[in-house]
Amino acid sequence: MNGRSKVYVEGPTGVRVPFTEVALSGGEPAVRLYDTSGPGSDPEVGLPRLRAHWIAEREGDRDTIEHDGATLPCRTQLHYAKQGVVTPEMEFVAIREGLDAEFVRAEIAAGRAILPANVNHAETEPMVIGKHFLTKINANIGTSAVSDSIAAEVEKLTWAVKWGADTVMDLSTGKHIHETREHIMRNSPVPIGTVPLYQALEKVNGDPVKLTWEVYRDTIIEQAEQGVDYMTVHAGVLLRYVPLAAERVTGIVSRGGSIMAAWCLAHHEENFLYTHFRELCEIFAEYDIAFSLGDGLRPGSIADANDEAQFAELRTLGELTHIAWEYDVQVMVEGPGHVPMHKIKENVDLQQEICGEAPFYTLGPLTTDIAPAYDHITSAIGAAMIGWFGTAMLCYVTPKEHLGLPNRDDVKEGVIAYKIAAHAADLAKGHPQAQAWDDALSKARFEFRWQDQFNLALDPDRAREYHDETLPAEPAKTAHFCSMCGPKFCSMKISQELKEYAAQGQLSARELADGMAAKSEEFAAAGGRVYLPVVDK
Amino acid sequence: MNGRSKVYVEGPTGVRVPFTEVALSGGEPAVRLYDTSGPGSDPEVGLPRLRAHWIAEREGDRDTIEHDGATLPCRTQLHYAKQGVVTPEMEFVAIREGLDAEFVRAEIAAGRAILPANVNHAETEPMVIGKHFLTKINANIGTSAVSDSIAAEVEKLTWAVKWGADTVMDLSTGKHIHETREHIMRNSPVPIGTVPLYQALEKVNGDPVKLTWEVYRDTIIEQAEQGVDYMTVHAGVLLRYVPLAAERVTGIVSRGGSIMAAWCLAHHEENFLYTHFRELCEIFAEYDIAFSLGDGLRPGSIADANDEAQFAELRTLGELTHIAWEYDVQVMVEGPGHVPMHKIKENVDLQQEICGEAPFYTLGPLTTDIAPAYDHITSAIGAAMIGWFGTAMLCYVTPKEHLGLPNRDDVKEGVIAYKIAAHAADLAKGHPQAQAWDDALSKARFEFRWQDQFNLALDPDRAREYHDETLPAEPAKTAHFCSMCGPKFCSMKISQELKEYAAQGQLSARELADGMAAKSEEFAAAGGRVYLPVVDK
Repeated sequence: MNGRSKVYVEGPTGVRVPFTEVALSGGEPAVRLYDTSGPGSDPEVGLPRLRAHWIAEREGDRDTIEHDGATLPCRTQLHYAKQGVVTPEMEFVAIREGLDAEFVRAEIAAGRAILPANVNHAETEPMVIGKHFLTKINANIGTSAVSDSIAAEVEKLTWAVKWGADTVMDLSTGKHIHETREHIMRNSPVPIGTVPLYQALEKVNGDPVKLTWEVYRDTIIEQAEQGVDYMTVHAGVLLRYVPLAAERVTGIVSRGGSIMAAWCLAHHEENFLYTHFRELCEIFAEYDIAFSLGDGLRPGSIADANDEAQFAELRTLGELTHIAWEYDVQVMVEGPGHVPMHKIKENVDLQQEICGEAPFYTLGPLTTDIAPAYDHITSAIGAAMIGWFGTAMLCYVTPKEHLGLPNRDDVKEGVIAYKIAAHAADLAKGHPQAQAWDDALSKARFEFRWQDQFNLALDPDRAREYHDETLPAEPAKTAHFCSMCGPKFCSMKISQELKEYAAQGQLSARELADGMAAKSEEFAAAGGRVYLPVVDK
Repeated sequence: MNGRSKVYVEGPTGVRVPFTEVALSGGEPAVRLYDTSGPGSDPEVGLPRLRAHWIAEREGDRDTIEHDGATLPCRTQLHYAKQGVVTPEMEFVAIREGLDAEFVRAEIAAGRAILPANVNHAETEPMVIGKHFLTKINANIGTSAVSDSIAAEVEKLTWAVKWGADTVMDLSTGKHIHETREHIMRNSPVPIGTVPLYQALEKVNGDPVKLTWEVYRDTIIEQAEQGVDYMTVHAGVLLRYVPLAAERVTGIVSRGGSIMAAWCLAHHEENFLYTHFRELCEIFAEYDIAFSLGDGLRPGSIADANDEAQFAELRTLGELTHIAWEYDVQVMVEGPGHVPMHKIKENVDLQQEICGEAPFYTLGPLTTDIAPAYDHITSAIGAAMIGWFGTAMLCYVTPKEHLGLPNRDDVKEGVIAYKIAAHAADLAKGHPQAQAWDDALSKARFEFRWQDQFNLALDPDRAREYHDETLPAEPAKTAHFCSMCGPKFCSMKISQELKEYAAQGQLSARELADGMAAKSEEFAAAGGRVYLPVVDK
């Protein structure tokens, strides 16, 4: 993209943090934008292992934790943060976010933010998820039984991070789950999340009843070894909550939730993810995998929002959050789903209260059910609002939601809609970097610096394309009007002329009060046509 | 569209109100949806004149008003409402909205709602704009100097109302303004709004300085005769407010606002729309044209939101609202524009307070400036919120905003995004009709009634198309899963089976508490595979 380049900002201890730099015309300073795209990968080779030596250097360095008299391996960012250590990863995200590294450490130490960074995923460029940082977005990809191609999924990954996905979840459920994930891990500059239950279920031939803790644990370890950075664990779907969902309009809509509900009922035993949660914590601590505590009972329709099933599970997720923290394991908590606007805020407030301010990670929420094929929009509305209210990461929804698997175009539509929601949230939260971006673009717009406006856009390609549809000629990109109003009716043009007039000191409120008639004569004497658009009649 | 048909509901005095009826399978009752599409027109002939005899029958019937000792013609819906008369138009909208006709009359009489209905636009199917009714949306169309085809504009009109536009504004600025509008008026089943200033400016060859009250007044009358239902009048751009906009990031971005600002400064006189406002009221009363008091100083960027220029003008619009009411002229008030989420509510609250609860009619607002080519989304976020807070009508924004003129596809994208915003607002406001639509669709989704889900969708065509992309075969439309998860992972399928189990009385919370182990044995004895998806392994 013309006018855009990747630059690196070096930190005090040598970390090099990427930004997209947008060079501007008209004497305006360049603007640096947060950049998730990574260094670019060759799928045959994978990405460079940026974090390899940071991880190696920490080896043996205070990487155990005492729990119940046992000494357990613990290599989490939370563990180091609680000991007062600013890791290179924390330094990296501090530069990325324009904040102090010590602030980053403190937020992680308090559990208010997580820095997902499996020690076996050295390819990641560190990023942070927490309400006091830029709002993040996640893109879901993955093969399914009816759609299955590893190359296509790796391409979707690269495409998603190009447009701004902060993390990617690999939700593959078809064949070749392990191999698909391996390719994704080695090519991903962003943290990768999974729902290990899907692979565990494949191992028992798709029969939820046959799931066991042992099969699940082995799956966790297999994925941990590959470097998965965070895992959705549906440990809050307790046996006694399942009946609460039976009378809903849309029952249980989470795949993981419905699988665990089926298991619980079939065995009439408590969810094994709940009963074995401390064992999970020990594994997660060793690899630095973050919990993404799944909301298996999230509402799947407006009618079911904020009901007892949902909030009962949330209380259990709060309990589990505090257990994970005992092991210095990083935690975020998943949230809905489908929620009408007036019930959104309650979700965040309750989650923050119950879960000790652990980061909230929501899917949308969709603010209405009536628009299949447009749920990137129905949910961007809810996502922007819930982000403003304090949700740290927004899981995207594509136009294909409820209808089919997203293709490449759908992934882009979903990512852009969610970048908009996240950025709107950052503006409403008063993030200083956020406002600067809007101001730079609006100034470019007002000054008819078309190329600057395109280059500052979230999607420069499409902005340029849409402009060129009506006024394709190159001179139109320097014209002081556009195709919407044409030259005579351009408010920005007239308004600019007013501004120039004001700058000449001829237009202060005081002067106006002093004598309009006199000013009028003066204006007429000066030619009387300052405000007249001159490009065309 | 298969499963959808137009039906008419007859009122007590013979009005026939159109609805879209969606026939459902599975024994579910049909759902009736608000229908804006009109009876379908032949562009060569125009639409039938539905209201002609209602208007004729009122002739001479209390259609004057006394003002300052003069007897003036007054044929406004507000005039009749204040006299306690329920017009056929009010009865029509009462049926459309599922409300009592007396309630409609009272809302109009109080100025809280308007029913735009120029006596010369007999083709309209009456609709109401007010915060206690369904949230409405407007679509802008119109030729410009660089894009100009009457047939294309009429087609856009028909297309816009097909997808749900409640009113359409003709913002033509190129040649053939009068002729274009005539074609639009005669083919529009929805109220048409204009900004007469654009045509007035064409009459003085595009030179704002040469505008006069006389040219403007003649233009108003010309358009009134054609049947324009509401007109944007930028009477609040006072001379003393213009300097307030000079130091903004984006100055004055309203075309009408910048034209009047240029005129005021050039003449150093007060805005002639302000000084002649009472004369405007007399004309508007005679034809029943509603004011749409233009916000010429609305913010054009996040940086300029809620500033002194904007709110100074709003106070003047409040003054003008009350003057219009003296003449029984219907009024709504226009609002921004570009506003970050945390500043949206203040806009509605202030407008409602200052303007005596006259309906608010906003453009978006866009919640960020960084996404040209996606401003239907940046603004749908703001539109949904401001609708919830009490805005009565939302003016759409298309993906081409800031870049070019919308084509047919853009019009549809804009209308659908705004139908979503309006409906999300209605849900959050607790409108009973709104919730029923979502419930019907979600129930169809949960029960795998795919055709019902498509037919209930805001855009059945695209929902069907997206579904068919991954699973095109006809049997897939009755399958109990979709391409997202495939048969084994379908949460809805598993969840449905749980629900059936619960319905057998085997799953009450009480029973679960009584003995999980016993239940488990019972389940195993029954085959143990109730929850197993059976479609595929």
